[in-house]
Formats: sequence, structure tokens, C-alpha cells
Amino acid sequence: MKGSSMEVGEVSKKGASPTRGLSIMDFVLRILAAVATLGAALAMATTNETLPFATQFIKFRAEFDDLPSLLFFVTGNSVVSGYLVLSLVLSVFHIVRSTAAKSRILLVAFDTVMLGLVTASASAATSIVYIAHHGNAGANWFAICQQYNNFCERISGSLIGSYIAVAIFTILIILSVVAISRN
Amino acid sequence: MKGSSMEVGEVSKKGASPTRGLSIMDFVLRILAAVATLGAALAMATTNETLPFATQFIKFRAEFDDLPSLLFFVTGNSVVSGYLVLSLVLSVFHIVRSTAAKSRILLVAFDTVMLGLVTASASAATSIVYIAHHGNAGANWFAICQQYNNFCERISGSLIGSYIAVAIFTILIILSVVAISRN
Repeated sequence: MKGSSMEVGEVSKKGASPTRGLSIMDFVLRILAAVATLGAALAMATTNETLPFATQFIKFRAEFDDLPSLLFFVTGNSVVSGYLVLSLVLSVFHIVRSTAAKSRILLVAFDTVMLGLVTASASAATSIVYIAHHGNAGANWFAICQQYNNFCERISGSLIGSYIAVAIFTILIILSVVAISRN
Repeated sequence: MKGSSMEVGEVSKKGASPTRGLSIMDFVLRILAAVATLGAALAMATTNETLPFATQFIKFRAEFDDLPSLLFFVTGNSVVSGYLVLSLVLSVFHIVRSTAAKSRILLVAFDTVMLGLVTASASAATSIVYIAHHGNAGANWFAICQQYNNFCERISGSLIGSYIAVAIFTILIILSVVAISRN
């Protein structure tokens, strides 16, 4: 990013190596983020816990789809994971043809929307997991984690994958912008 | 965005009008987003409701800082609003000097992080507002909105400002990327 020549435009060579390096990094990061979001979605979706006792009135089984925010988490992360796998096609195209500019702009636009989606799903789930752990005295919401230990550990752990994806998307957008400015 | 000449780099003229138009749009959108996030933060922060009766054991006063997610919403929106006001300086600089590239990259990087922050705060607050409205049978969390009507209306309304900011940030990032590709 040094050198003021960039600011008045630069005639770049086809297949210039600085942009190719960025494109390869882009490809690797996309695979990592796809694995992270898929893992997060699967970890959350396969979680349930049934307590070894029951009464007629109170339900003692916890599943992720009892809570709409956790369902949104699974849906959001699945969509983002699918998008990341599809976006690998464009990522490979950018490695092969590193001067492509318009397809990079398209990719940044989609990446920005997907960053929003994965951040929203991670954040919505986190606020529910927080209530599940600590409850809320003001609203008289009880900390369900006191009963559903394993359930709570799993749903807390699955958030990590989603936050990794948030960080990777931020890096991906900045990488793309740097690549566009170099073309 | 038409014309393949862009893909092999283009020596742009100082103060080229297509980028200046984008910079002016950038400036206006930043002001709108700053007002929206400030409004959201203020609407949430000034909300409280005390019910006209009380017992010794249960609290009948609702304030936004009873719920950590709503506190995060106020903090997040305030930070983003402050950032947007500061970023107006760079935005004006881009109107004056529309070929600047490095400062635009910097702005996209910050915008991306701030998009993450405002999305996270909007989403965390939304999932709590949802529970406040509908409760959750599985977790035995009660819908507090049945008692705190005004409180719930205000906190639901304040989410709108935050979502407007999410949409504007997405547009801002794409505008910046287009401007960078044109330089």
C-alpha cells in the first residue's frame, strides 16, 4: 500500500503477482470460514438434552429450535457456509485472472451482506446464550443452564465458529478492496 | 462500471466527476446513518417504565440497563454514531480530492468493522425484544411486554434506527469500492 503512484492510477500487468497473492489468501480464508460456519451450524443443530425427570406441566427437554434466535443462528450460518462454498468459484477465477475488477466488486458486495448475516446470527444467539447462563432478575427470566449443562456448553461452543467467520469476512473485504485498488 | 478498460487499469484525471458524485452520496449517507444511530441510542437509553404497583419481592420498574443486550445496543449505536461524525472529515476530503485511494481503503476497513458492530448491537437487542414480546415456553421465560407496554414499544421502535444504519453501511462500503475501482 506504499507509493503515491497508486493514487493517480496505475496500468497493471496481466497476472501481476501482488494481486495473485491476495487472491490465494482469499481462497484459503474462504475455505476456513466455510468450515467454521458449517461447524457452528452443525454443533448448534445437533444439540439437545433431556433431563432424567419430568412432570406433567413442565418440559424438561431442551433443543435449539425451542429458541427462535438459535434457529436463526443455524439458518444464518448454513446460508453463509453455502455462499462461501459457491464463492470459491469466483475466488479461483481471481487467482487465474488477477486483473478482474468487476467480479471483485460483486464479491465485495455479497461478502458485505454475508458479513451482516453472520454477525446478526452470532450476536442474536449470543444474547440468548447469555440469558440462558445468567438469567435476568429484572425480567424474572431464569438461568436455564443450571439444569441444562451439556446443552449450554454446546450452544456456547458453537458460537465460536460464527465469530471466526465474522473476523474472516472482515479480512476478506479488506483484501478485496486492496486487490481492486492495485488493479 | 461498463467498459473493460477498467480491468487493465486506467490513468484517471484529478477530480474526475464520477467519483465526486459517489463521494457526495457517501457524505449524505453518513449524516443520515449518524442521525439514525444517535436516535436509536437515545430512544433506547431514555426508556423506562414503572408500573403503578409494587410488592416487596418483585421489581416493577423496567429500564434498558436491566438487560445487558440493550445496554450493548446503546453503547454500540453511540460508538457508531460518533465514528460516523468523525468519518465526515475523510468523506469531505474525498469530495475535494476524489482520486485519493489509500484513505478510501482505510475508510472501507473502518466501515466494515462498524457494520459488524451496529449489526451485532441491533441483532442482540432484537433477540431480547423478541423474548420480551413473546416469551419462551421451553425456557419458562415470560413475555414482560404484557406488563411493560410503553417500555416495549419504545425499545422495539429504537431498533429501526439501527437497522437503517446497517443498510446504509452496506451501501457505503459498496460505494467506496466502486470509487476505488474507478481511480
